Amino acid sequence: MAHALRLAARGLGNVWPNPAVGCVLVRDGVIVGRGWTQPGGRPHAEVRALSQAGPLAEGATAYVTLEPCAHHGHTPPCADALIAARVARVVTALTDPDPRVSGKGHAMLRAAGIAVTEGVMASEATHLNAGFLKRVTQGLPFVTLKLAASLDGRTATATGESRWITGPDARRKVHAMRLAHDAVMVGSGTALADDPDLTVRDMGTVRQPIRIVLDRMLRHSPDSRLGSTAKDHPVWLLHGPSAPDPARKSWEAVGATLIEIPETDGHLDLKAALQTLASKGLTRIFSEGGGTVAAALVKGGLLDELAMFSGGVLIGSEGHAALGQLMLRSLSEAARTVLLLEERVGNDTFSRWRLALG
Amino acid sequence: MAHALRLAARGLGNVWPNPAVGCVLVRDGVIVGRGWTQPGGRPHAEVRALSQAGPLAEGATAYVTLEPCAHHGHTPPCADALIAARVARVVTALTDPDPRVSGKGHAMLRAAGIAVTEGVMASEATHLNAGFLKRVTQGLPFVTLKLAASLDGRTATATGESRWITGPDARRKVHAMRLAHDAVMVGSGTALADDPDLTVRDMGTVRQPIRIVLDRMLRHSPDSRLGSTAKDHPVWLLHGPSAPDPARKSWEAVGATLIEIPETDGHLDLKAALQTLASKGLTRIFSEGGGTVAAALVKGGLLDELAMFSGGVLIGSEGHAALGQLMLRSLSEAARTVLLLEERVGNDTFSRWRLALG
Repeated sequence: MAHALRLAARGLGNVWPNPAVGCVLVRDGVIVGRGWTQPGGRPHAEVRALSQAGPLAEGATAYVTLEPCAHHGHTPPCADALIAARVARVVTALTDPDPRVSGKGHAMLRAAGIAVTEGVMASEATHLNAGFLKRVTQGLPFVTLKLAASLDGRTATATGESRWITGPDARRKVHAMRLAHDAVMVGSGTALADDPDLTVRDMGTVRQPIRIVLDRMLRHSPDSRLGSTAKDHPVWLLHGPSAPDPARKSWEAVGATLIEIPETDGHLDLKAALQTLASKGLTRIFSEGGGTVAAALVKGGLLDELAMFSGGVLIGSEGHAALGQLMLRSLSEAARTVLLLEERVGNDTFSRWRLALG
Repeated sequence: MAHALRLAARGLGNVWPNPAVGCVLVRDGVIVGRGWTQPGGRPHAEVRALSQAGPLAEGATAYVTLEPCAHHGHTPPCADALIAARVARVVTALTDPDPRVSGKGHAMLRAAGIAVTEGVMASEATHLNAGFLKRVTQGLPFVTLKLAASLDGRTATATGESRWITGPDARRKVHAMRLAHDAVMVGSGTALADDPDLTVRDMGTVRQPIRIVLDRMLRHSPDSRLGSTAKDHPVWLLHGPSAPDPARKSWEAVGATLIEIPETDGHLDLKAALQTLASKGLTRIFSEGGGTVAAALVKGGLLDELAMFSGGVLIGSEGHAALGQLMLRSLSEAARTVLLLEERVGNDTFSRWRLALG
């Protein structure tokens, strides 16, 4: 199952709206087939592993990171495929929360006389597929906030200079992290200040994450890097009801997707924005800035993980804060996190933190 | 030598104004004596190791982390002691920069027919005794700045709440770090806000570091924790020429040491303050706050290392900044640091950074 989970992880960022699944077929102690969900979400992991194993699948044990699907979607049910291949046993990590599956896959296998063991490495599989699970159960994507700041928590000098606070190894790691997410998201302030293109570079990637800008009034220019590359790789602009028509038209002209989101108190309703993204199938969002979006995610309880890069530079309190105002009344109200890992990346430190449940 | 350096490290914080030295005597591949500088700076490491070895010192090799002293101070020269014990060979890591020694110790040994090898693990020894070396060569102490902040670089909420941002393991590590320094230093803002006692607790320590407050106008109260414990453990108040007389008298009455420092632009002259501390023998200072002192250390180029604790909590930009204003004109002017180590401490991260030379 550990191996199947590692295979599954290859799909992260590439398979939405589907879950990233891994499957390993073992017969007589030998691996006869391996598969993982392919880019775009199909073929499914089980089908790939079965086709690799061919006749050797008969009598094998299938280790699958998620309950095999039981419904006819774009592909026939994987449970049927496992039954047809005459595997002897299926071991799964999780029940699929999708109401079209949700136990039916396991039941179909058992009805066909296949031994089924459930819940193996369930917590690892839950962590791996947190995005898919959150989309299906809560209608929201899993959101990771990247903070890349100086040792004193600044993302730029008072004059807006930010190149570079972290080093090339950290920036390369950011690109790898973008690749494992369905979408990269920034606020309009960051888009205007940095004119980023938000693509994954130098990684031999086939599929780029969706590039999302939260831009209530469509202030960002279609002449930007995002605008000029929108025909090559998707750009989604989330704007408010009062965004001006000419800006809508010129962004549509360069090939961007415009999505209207309701406003609350003069801001985009961030929860509604994320619900809309989930309804479009996105499971994993990588938020890269800036401080206002970051603070809104924290205040809204919409954040799942923090990816923190600290560069060995000192900027001073007049620099830009990595995180905006949270308006805490006391420290006991502050969002707390659990340290998942910490490591050195070049001359910077990197740490991952999971938001603790309220 | 690696073992001698580990022994030497036991003296850090305990031996000022002397260097922390370690000595290992080896005869026929067996350790026959070990010593390190004792609390208060005497006896010296060599004397301790020789007395442990007794007659077994004859013909042995002495590994010493610093050139043995050649002058009569409070103790007779260690070079003489090594000669009298008839050791066969002396291996050292560093030449003592103290002008009373500075090569004379090595020369005395050689003149007595003892083989001398110099410079073994010199860079490790330089790092270990950076405080002593800086005091002797530059007339300044080695200064480590502790920053304990939230993930977004805040040391307290807007209302000043700071208990707790880091966890008990990190706080315990801070106490251990205080113990390895000659003195702990804070600004008057921190003293007034937190009423700290700055002692080392629960470590079975014999000797407390000097507790220093930078308090230009002597605003801090002698009724504070520092004032009420000044008779038990030293408190040094560094004040300006215009500090009011009654405050001076009441601090003297509770047993504090008052040291007058010149002012520049309405602030204590921090460089003059550190020079004064070095002239009193201090080699290693642990600065624990707050943001104003931290910024002054950075701006003055007076900082040597940063000890950074990050707690997994989010406070927001209205909280207190860990570091005050630096007034950088561009990012290229910013102080840069080299990552020395990073590790997990409880649910917090800890990292050490050495200031890069301008």
